Amino acid sequence: MADIGTETIDTGKSATGDPLLVFMPSGRRGYFPKGTPILAAARQLGVDIDSVCGGRGICGRCQVVVSEGEFAKLGVTSDTHHLSDFSSVEQRYADKRGLKPGRRLSCQAVLLGDLVIDVPADSQVHKQVVRKRAEMREIILDPVIKLHYVEVREPDMHDPTGDLQRLEEALKNQWSLEGLDCDVRAIQGLQQALRKGEWKVTVAVHMGKQITAVWPGFQEKIYGFAVDVGSTTIAGHLCDLQTGEVVASSGLMNPQIRFGEDLMSRVSYVMMNPGGDQDMTRAVREALNDLAQAVAREAGCTVEDILECTFVGNPIMHHLLLGINPIELGWAPFALATDGPVQIWASEIDLKVHPNARIYVLPCIAGHVGADTAGVILSETPYESDEMTLIVDVGTNAEIVLGNKNRLVAASSPTGPAFEGAQISCGQRAAPGAIERVRIDRETLEPRFKVIGCDLWSDHPDFAKQTEAFGVTGVCGSGIIEALAEMFLSGILTQDGVIDGAMAAKSPRIQAEGRTFLYLLHDGQPQLKITQNDIRAIQLAKAALYAGARLLMDKLGIEKVDRITLAGAFGSHIDVKYAMVLGMIPDCDLAKVTSAGNAAGTGARIALLNRGARDEIARVVKQVEKIETAVEAKFQEHFIEAMALPHKTSPYPHLAKAVKLPEPKLAAQPDGTGEDGGRRRNRRRG
Amino acid sequence: MADIGTETIDTGKSATGDPLLVFMPSGRRGYFPKGTPILAAARQLGVDIDSVCGGRGICGRCQVVVSEGEFAKLGVTSDTHHLSDFSSVEQRYADKRGLKPGRRLSCQAVLLGDLVIDVPADSQVHKQVVRKRAEMREIILDPVIKLHYVEVREPDMHDPTGDLQRLEEALKNQWSLEGLDCDVRAIQGLQQALRKGEWKVTVAVHMGKQITAVWPGFQEKIYGFAVDVGSTTIAGHLCDLQTGEVVASSGLMNPQIRFGEDLMSRVSYVMMNPGGDQDMTRAVREALNDLAQAVAREAGCTVEDILECTFVGNPIMHHLLLGINPIELGWAPFALATDGPVQIWASEIDLKVHPNARIYVLPCIAGHVGADTAGVILSETPYESDEMTLIVDVGTNAEIVLGNKNRLVAASSPTGPAFEGAQISCGQRAAPGAIERVRIDRETLEPRFKVIGCDLWSDHPDFAKQTEAFGVTGVCGSGIIEALAEMFLSGILTQDGVIDGAMAAKSPRIQAEGRTFLYLLHDGQPQLKITQNDIRAIQLAKAALYAGARLLMDKLGIEKVDRITLAGAFGSHIDVKYAMVLGMIPDCDLAKVTSAGNAAGTGARIALLNRGARDEIARVVKQVEKIETAVEAKFQEHFIEAMALPHKTSPYPHLAKAVKLPEPKLAAQPDGTGEDGGRRRNRRRG
Repeated sequence: MADIGTETIDTGKSATGDPLLVFMPSGRRGYFPKGTPILAAARQLGVDIDSVCGGRGICGRCQVVVSEGEFAKLGVTSDTHHLSDFSSVEQRYADKRGLKPGRRLSCQAVLLGDLVIDVPADSQVHKQVVRKRAEMREIILDPVIKLHYVEVREPDMHDPTGDLQRLEEALKNQWSLEGLDCDVRAIQGLQQALRKGEWKVTVAVHMGKQITAVWPGFQEKIYGFAVDVGSTTIAGHLCDLQTGEVVASSGLMNPQIRFGEDLMSRVSYVMMNPGGDQDMTRAVREALNDLAQAVAREAGCTVEDILECTFVGNPIMHHLLLGINPIELGWAPFALATDGPVQIWASEIDLKVHPNARIYVLPCIAGHVGADTAGVILSETPYESDEMTLIVDVGTNAEIVLGNKNRLVAASSPTGPAFEGAQISCGQRAAPGAIERVRIDRETLEPRFKVIGCDLWSDHPDFAKQTEAFGVTGVCGSGIIEALAEMFLSGILTQDGVIDGAMAAKSPRIQAEGRTFLYLLHDGQPQLKITQNDIRAIQLAKAALYAGARLLMDKLGIEKVDRITLAGAFGSHIDVKYAMVLGMIPDCDLAKVTSAGNAAGTGARIALLNRGARDEIARVVKQVEKIETAVEAKFQEHFIEAMALPHKTSPYPHLAKAVKLPEPKLAAQPDGTGEDGGRRRNRRRG
Repeated sequence: MADIGTETIDTGKSATGDPLLVFMPSGRRGYFPKGTPILAAARQLGVDIDSVCGGRGICGRCQVVVSEGEFAKLGVTSDTHHLSDFSSVEQRYADKRGLKPGRRLSCQAVLLGDLVIDVPADSQVHKQVVRKRAEMREIILDPVIKLHYVEVREPDMHDPTGDLQRLEEALKNQWSLEGLDCDVRAIQGLQQALRKGEWKVTVAVHMGKQITAVWPGFQEKIYGFAVDVGSTTIAGHLCDLQTGEVVASSGLMNPQIRFGEDLMSRVSYVMMNPGGDQDMTRAVREALNDLAQAVAREAGCTVEDILECTFVGNPIMHHLLLGINPIELGWAPFALATDGPVQIWASEIDLKVHPNARIYVLPCIAGHVGADTAGVILSETPYESDEMTLIVDVGTNAEIVLGNKNRLVAASSPTGPAFEGAQISCGQRAAPGAIERVRIDRETLEPRFKVIGCDLWSDHPDFAKQTEAFGVTGVCGSGIIEALAEMFLSGILTQDGVIDGAMAAKSPRIQAEGRTFLYLLHDGQPQLKITQNDIRAIQLAKAALYAGARLLMDKLGIEKVDRITLAGAFGSHIDVKYAMVLGMIPDCDLAKVTSAGNAAGTGARIALLNRGARDEIARVVKQVEKIETAVEAKFQEHFIEAMALPHKTSPYPHLAKAVKLPEPKLAAQPDGTGEDGGRRRNRRRG
C-alpha cells in the first residue's frame, strides 16, 4: 500500500517516489502509486465522494475537477497532464449524459503525477441542501433510501441459490451491506428485473436494512414527498432524493373542510356522525393522492418513483391521516393515540406511490400540539440555541414553543380564527382584492392600503385601474392586524381597544354605530368597516396568544425573550412590527423577530432528506415540557391583562424605540361617558 | 428476602423459621416467608408457571395442586392446610370459568407452612405439545405471539402522553417488555379498547417486539393456522396458541388444478398465458380464505382470532402463494426467487384473518426442493440423529433427503405421477371403489384385493354387497404397488419387469395383448388389467426414485441407510414391504422403515408453535447440500440399473429375510423368444 499522508500539511516527498494527491476542500492528502483511480484514493482517505454505480462509469456522481497550478501552501504543483486522458468510458458517459468542461469521472481517471483534485459540492454523498434563509442550520443530505447499482452472479444449477440471495451477496460484496430483508413486492419483481437488466440492477435500500425496490440496469432518480397536512390547506414538496432539491411543489384545499371549517367542528362532526372519521380519513387520503399526482406531473416523473414520504400535521390531522378516530382529542384530557413517530407503508394510508414506499409521520407533542409543531421545532432548532427563542405558529390555534438548548416548553393557545379574517365583519381569506397593508395618516386619519394582486397603494392614481378586475373586497388577516395597529398608533383606538368617539370630530371615517363607534376603512362597494366587535375579536385572539407565551415564560422564569420566530403562512404575511404593536407577541428586539414561513413543512422536508433528523426530533419531542393552557390558573389572568394594546402592564421598550406609541387616554363614548363605562361594559361581556 | 435453598436436596431448617416450599416435578425449592404467594415464589426459583393476567386471578393459567403427605426424600411434610384458604378471587374464577377439585390459583394462594406443590403440565409456559408418533422429538410451545394482560395508567392533561406510550409503559413495568413497536391498525383501535376495557386490556405481542393486537379486558384465546399448500390438496390445521392443541383441521382441492393437473402443466400455463400466474395466485389465495373460514367455523371462533399463519409448499406452490411468477422454475437453471424464509403480513397475500396477523413461509431449498421438504426436515429432524436417515416424500415429484447430524443432502427426482395412479391404464385417485391392497395366490395366481370404502377382502362373501354403492372402479397408487410386487413375488413378473407369458399356462388371468402380456386383476365392469405399459410406467417412476436416493448415498459415500421415512399422504398408505419389493427404496431393516404421514404439514405446525424452530430450519436449510439430479451423469446409470425388481445389482439382504424373493428367470414372450428379446425391445423404447 502507498505511504498515506495525514490531513496535516506535509511538503516532504514520498519515500517510494509516488505522486502526491490532495483533495479539496477537505485538504485530505496522500501518496498513491501511479495508476490509482482517483475515487479509490478518495475512499482510502475518507474523502466524501458519491457513487451509485460503484465505480463503473455509469452514474456520473463521482465527478471531480483538476485544480491546476502551483500550490505553495500545499507543496504541490498540480497539472492536468498528471491525470490520465479522457477514457472511452468517460467519453461514453459524456456522449450519453453530458459532462461539463473540466469535469472527470473519478472512478475512471487515474493518478499519473502530483495533483490537487477539487470535489464539487454536487459530488458529495452528504451534500448540503440549500435553504432560503441564511440563519437556518444546513440540511445534510442523508435520506433513509439509498440507491446501489450491483452486478449479480447468475444462477447455477449446481449451486442452487435464490436470486434474492445472490442479490444480497452482491450488495454485501459490492456495498458492504449485510443482513438485509426484502419486501415481498420487491421479491415479486426481482427475477424479471435481474433478467431484463442482464444481471445488473439498481437496488433501493431503506435504512441500510430493507430492500424496497429493484430496477433493471441503472436507475438514476428517486423521489421523496414531504407534506404538511393543514386543516385548511395541504402543501407538498417533491424532492429529488439524490440531490435534495425540491423539484415540484403544490398545494390544495383540505377537502375535510366540507365536514367543518375548523378543527373543533370536524371533531364535532365525528361525535355526531358515527363513521364520520372514516369519511374524513378517506377525503384527506384522496387529496394526498391528487397532490402526489400533481407534483409528479410537474416534475415529469410518475408517482411510482416516490419511495419515501414524510408528514406533519396538527394532532387531529395526524390522527385522521393515520385512520385514528380523533374523538378523544375533542374532550379533556385530550389523549393522543400515540405521541411517538409513526413509520409505516404508504399503502397503509392508501397512498398510491411506489408500492413499497414508506411514510414517516413526525411525532405529536400533546393533545393540542401536533406533528406540525414538531416540524417547526426541527426546522428552527431552538434546542441548539443559546438564545431564548419564542416560536409562534399562528393558525386557527396558535402553537407556542419557548426555550433554548437547556429546556423547551410548548403549549397551544385557543386564538380562534380571527387572525385569519374569520369573525371579522369585513374579513376574508387572503385572495386578490383583500386588503393586506394599511396606513393611517396621523393627522387626517385618512387610510391608504394595498390589496393582494396589486403592488400600488390605494392613493396611487392607477390603483383603481389596476384593481378593476377584482376590486377591493375585504380585509385579510394581515390587513386586520395593520388596520388595528395603525388605528391605535393614530389615536383612533385607546389602549383598551375602544374606538375613541372624540376622534369623530377629526374625521368622518369615525362613525357612531349604536353605543360604539366604527372606522370606515374603505368607502366602496362593499363598504369595509372596522367595528368595535371586530376589534374585540382580534383582542381576544391576541390576548390568548400573548397569554400562552407569557405562561411559558413563567414556566421558564423569564421576563423577556431573545428571539421570536413567526411560523406558518400567516406569519409570512404579517409585518412583525404591527404584530408587536398589537401585543400579539412579547417585546423583543425587532431585528430578531423573523418569519420562518412554512416551518412545519420544512421540518417534514428535513425528516425526508436526513435520517438522523428523525431520531433527533423524536428525542427532542420527548424532552419538551407540555403545558395545557386550559388548566393553568394563571392563563386567565394573563389573558385579561393582555387585552390591552400592546399590554396593560408589560412594558415594550424595544417597540417604543421603533415606533412612537400613543399616550394612554380614555375613549369618548356615544353616550358621552368616558372610557371607564366602556371598559365595564366590555368586562361584563368577558 | 427469604433464605432461598438450591435445587439440591436440603433437609436443614431455615435459620429464620420460614416454611420450605418444593415445586414438583422440577424439584426446585426454597424457604419463603409466610404469606408469600406461590406464584411469586415460583418466579424467584425460576419455576416455569404460566400467567397471562400477571397474577390478577383472571387468566387461570397458573393453576397448581398441593401434594399432600410426608415426603421423606424431600425432607418435608406437606399439608393442604399449609396453603391459604380458597380466596374470594379464586372463588370468582371458579364460579365463572370452573376449577377442577384440588386446583388452586398460585397467584392467589399463599404459603403458610411447608409444602410440596405440583405444577401440572398445562400450567407451564413452555408446555410440551403431544405428537402422535412417539419417536418424534417433542414440540415445546413457544409461539411468536404471546398475550399479556395489563392495567394502563389513565391519561392526564398535566402530563400529556399518548395512550400507546402509557400502554408501552405498562408492558414494561408489568411484563418487562421494552422497545416495542406497534402496528398502525393496532393504534387505530387502541383508544377504544382501552376505554371499553376500563384501562385493562390484553395485548398480543409478536416476537417480544411488536404490538399486533389490543383487546378490551381479558382475551383468552388466540389461534394459529398451519397450512401445507400441495399441488393437489391444501391442508390446514388450526391451533390454539395458548395450548398448542390442534382444534380444527380441514383440507380442500387446490383450485389451481383447473390450470393444470401437475406442476409442470401449471408452469406451462403461465408460459403460454401471460398473467396466468396471477390467476393461479388468486385461486390459491381464495382457497386459503375458504380453508381459514372452514377451520374457524369448526373451532367456533372467527378468522379474526387467527394471529399467525405458517405455510409449506413445493417451490411452485410457494412462489404462486407469494405472488411470484414461477416461470423461472420451469426451465434450467430452475432459479428460485428466494431460498430464505419469508415473513410478511397475512394481508400481503390477501389472507383475511386478523388484520395484523403475520405469515411465515418456510424456506425453499432448491428449484425442485421446496418449503414442504424444509417442513419434512423440521418434523423428522434427521440433522439431530446419529442414524443415517433417508427421507422420501413421494408425490408427483419425489423429494429425497439423506443424512444425519453431520451432513444432509437433498434432491428431487422426476418420478412422474405414476405412483398416484396416473399414467396407469386402470389407475385412479384414492377414492371409494379404488383397489388399495392386493394379494396373489402363489399357486393359482388368483388375486384378492381390498377397495377403499370397504374393510373386507374381495373373496369375502359380503364383499359384493358392501361395495355395491361404489363398485370396483380402478386401482389407486398403493394398489398398483402391491399388485406389481405380488405379481413379482408370485412369478408373473420377471426381475426385469416383463410379464412372463409362460405363466399363461397356469392361469387364464395372464393374457396376450399384441407382443406383450397383461394380468387381469378384476374381471368386472370395468375390467381392470395390469398391462406391460403400466408396469413400465411404475418401473420408470421407481427407478427414478431409487436412482435419486442412490445418488445421494454416493454423495455421502455410503452403501446402506439406517432408517427410511416415507413422508406424504402416499407414504401413509403404502405397505413399506411392497415398496421395498419393487425396489422403490434401498434395502433397510423393515422395522426401521416408517411412514411419517404429512410431515411437511407437521413442519408448518412446529414453526407455528415454536419460534426457535424458525431459526433452526433456516439454519439447517442453508447447510443442506443440494443435488440437481438432472445434471448428474451417474443419475442415468443408477436409473437404468434400478429398472429391475427390486434392483439389477444391489442386494436386498434385509428384504430377503422378510420376504421369499423369487429366483431370477427369463420371460416367455408371445413370439416364443426368451427374455433377452424383450429386454432389447424395452431398451429401444428407453
